[in-house]
Amino acid sequence: MCNNHKNVTMTRVLSTPTAKAPFEKTTIERRELRPHDILIDIKFSGICHSDIHSAYDEWGGGMFPMVPGHEIAGVVAAVGSKVTKFAVGDRVGVGCFVDSCGECEYCLNGEEQFCTKGVINTYNSIDFDGNPTYGGYSQKIVVKEGFIVRIPDSLDMDVAAPLLCAGITTYSPLKHWNAPGKKVAIVGMGGLGHVAIQFAHAMGAEVTVLSRSKNKESEALSFSADHYFATSDPATFTELAGRFDLILNTVSANLNVDAYLSLLRVDGTLVNVGAPAESDQYHVFSLIMGRRSIAGSLVGGIRETQEMLDFAAQQGIAPKIEVIHADQVDEAYQRVLRSDVRYRFVIDISTL
Amino acid sequence: MCNNHKNVTMTRVLSTPTAKAPFEKTTIERRELRPHDILIDIKFSGICHSDIHSAYDEWGGGMFPMVPGHEIAGVVAAVGSKVTKFAVGDRVGVGCFVDSCGECEYCLNGEEQFCTKGVINTYNSIDFDGNPTYGGYSQKIVVKEGFIVRIPDSLDMDVAAPLLCAGITTYSPLKHWNAPGKKVAIVGMGGLGHVAIQFAHAMGAEVTVLSRSKNKESEALSFSADHYFATSDPATFTELAGRFDLILNTVSANLNVDAYLSLLRVDGTLVNVGAPAESDQYHVFSLIMGRRSIAGSLVGGIRETQEMLDFAAQQGIAPKIEVIHADQVDEAYQRVLRSDVRYRFVIDISTL
Repeated sequence: MCNNHKNVTMTRVLSTPTAKAPFEKTTIERRELRPHDILIDIKFSGICHSDIHSAYDEWGGGMFPMVPGHEIAGVVAAVGSKVTKFAVGDRVGVGCFVDSCGECEYCLNGEEQFCTKGVINTYNSIDFDGNPTYGGYSQKIVVKEGFIVRIPDSLDMDVAAPLLCAGITTYSPLKHWNAPGKKVAIVGMGGLGHVAIQFAHAMGAEVTVLSRSKNKESEALSFSADHYFATSDPATFTELAGRFDLILNTVSANLNVDAYLSLLRVDGTLVNVGAPAESDQYHVFSLIMGRRSIAGSLVGGIRETQEMLDFAAQQGIAPKIEVIHADQVDEAYQRVLRSDVRYRFVIDISTL
Repeated sequence: MCNNHKNVTMTRVLSTPTAKAPFEKTTIERRELRPHDILIDIKFSGICHSDIHSAYDEWGGGMFPMVPGHEIAGVVAAVGSKVTKFAVGDRVGVGCFVDSCGECEYCLNGEEQFCTKGVINTYNSIDFDGNPTYGGYSQKIVVKEGFIVRIPDSLDMDVAAPLLCAGITTYSPLKHWNAPGKKVAIVGMGGLGHVAIQFAHAMGAEVTVLSRSKNKESEALSFSADHYFATSDPATFTELAGRFDLILNTVSANLNVDAYLSLLRVDGTLVNVGAPAESDQYHVFSLIMGRRSIAGSLVGGIRETQEMLDFAAQQGIAPKIEVIHADQVDEAYQRVLRSDVRYRFVIDISTL
């Protein structure tokens, strides 16, 4: 249509035209490479529960058509004129965001997720140039080099993909709240939880899994959990009272917060990484009586994401995944909603 | 009645026979001194809001007749055979608790308030010997020396009394969450809040008071607050968004928690020291988006209470008090409930 766009890259994507509509294969443009941009051939793209919240517009603010996907693993296909950190052929990843101001104290400190001007999310965001962002359910994507991480050789591309969100979302709070040497409980054994177990164990924590039923016990132990308790059994809350230094709640559903706080030692913290749509309740006494805290954690910065990937590679940590074809995404969403996935879906982008 | 109690001490007290009944002057026994016990002639006893919660049985578990009072300042009148730390005539204080197991990790660490066997409260508790404890609205009290602190010479007895609860309750979290050099907000300017301002300022924090109306602004500044905002003005929440490292909430009423969390910087903490009877609500997003925390703090240990008194003496920190007579306590309770006190009532025990 307009000849000043002749160097854009056309790419196939999975796009949802409106909230809750089935995905369609369409074609969009990726911008012409700027000096610090990189064009990535996407190989695998993970499905995160937040993709569903966004595509179903459950959090509000959904911009359609939407191309979700912020767990992106691929290969560098082209680099801008001033790119220095990556070369064509490099194995790279992109996570939850693709730009930030670069100047505020948080950006300068490598915690771009807290950028005071607002981080630009990989999809469903308005970029600094005014254009909407489209995510990883796509054959190609263009991203600034500062927001790209290197995938270590020993990590397979398909398992690397979910680490870009599920991995950093659990790794970062375990580091921030000093899991090494501590008694750590992981609430929920889904896409996030099963990775959290592995990270917490590898960091040297004593890891207890708290899951609704006993169904996943043997698998939890195979992921190196030390203990496993069913939260459907009230005796669990008696037996484990005052036990944990840190509880990492990976479940995006409302919780009996006071019951979980009672499992914390003095100075213990309940950290949430999943956000239910409704508010949670707590009684202040539950906090005061043990100087306890309720906290939240939001993914992690680019530097820490690289550190997490390197640690995963070194420790042999890998999400357990089910690779699907592009035409199975709607069905996969339904299965995630039924918790019928062990433990993370990854789209094979070659099928798009 | 029985001659094996001949060395007990009889003492006049203010006692409430049932929940919400007027106080009566009666006489009770204080136990015979054990080797590590100290008999104190009480000079002043502060009135804490929690005395009212207890005497009105609003938290449940009230044991009647009840003698409240856990802000006790007096003079040593007699010492047990093995007392080494205090001598007759010493100016001493007793705060919220009078015994603990002495063996658990928290007791050994000087944080008796978190004793795993349960700390023995100064009143409304069952002591390890099976007897109920009776508090400071009393002419005399017997307490183990390990639970007694020294009142520095430069602190007047009447102003020292409220420091034993209101002082340590605010000093401890300001220390624990590292107020020095930080931007600290104090929510509420009552018995706790007006002391918290002074401690936070003396520690080197930049102190903002958040109070419902502008009524107490000039007094807040006289207590060394740097800024003052009325929370009844919605513009306050816009102007102060993301401002504070620490918010110390001294108000025992339900709060719009999400609104207060929005005033915190990344990694900021909202610490509660007052406990409303009903649960509070928060949205997990309010925590996640800035890695923020909600926490609670419970008074402080004996060692830290001594440190707090010494710091107050050194820095010239003093609660602003209204000294009342023993027959004015019922009226004082009503005035506390109407927030009609600037800022702490103290009973002159010589009037009992």
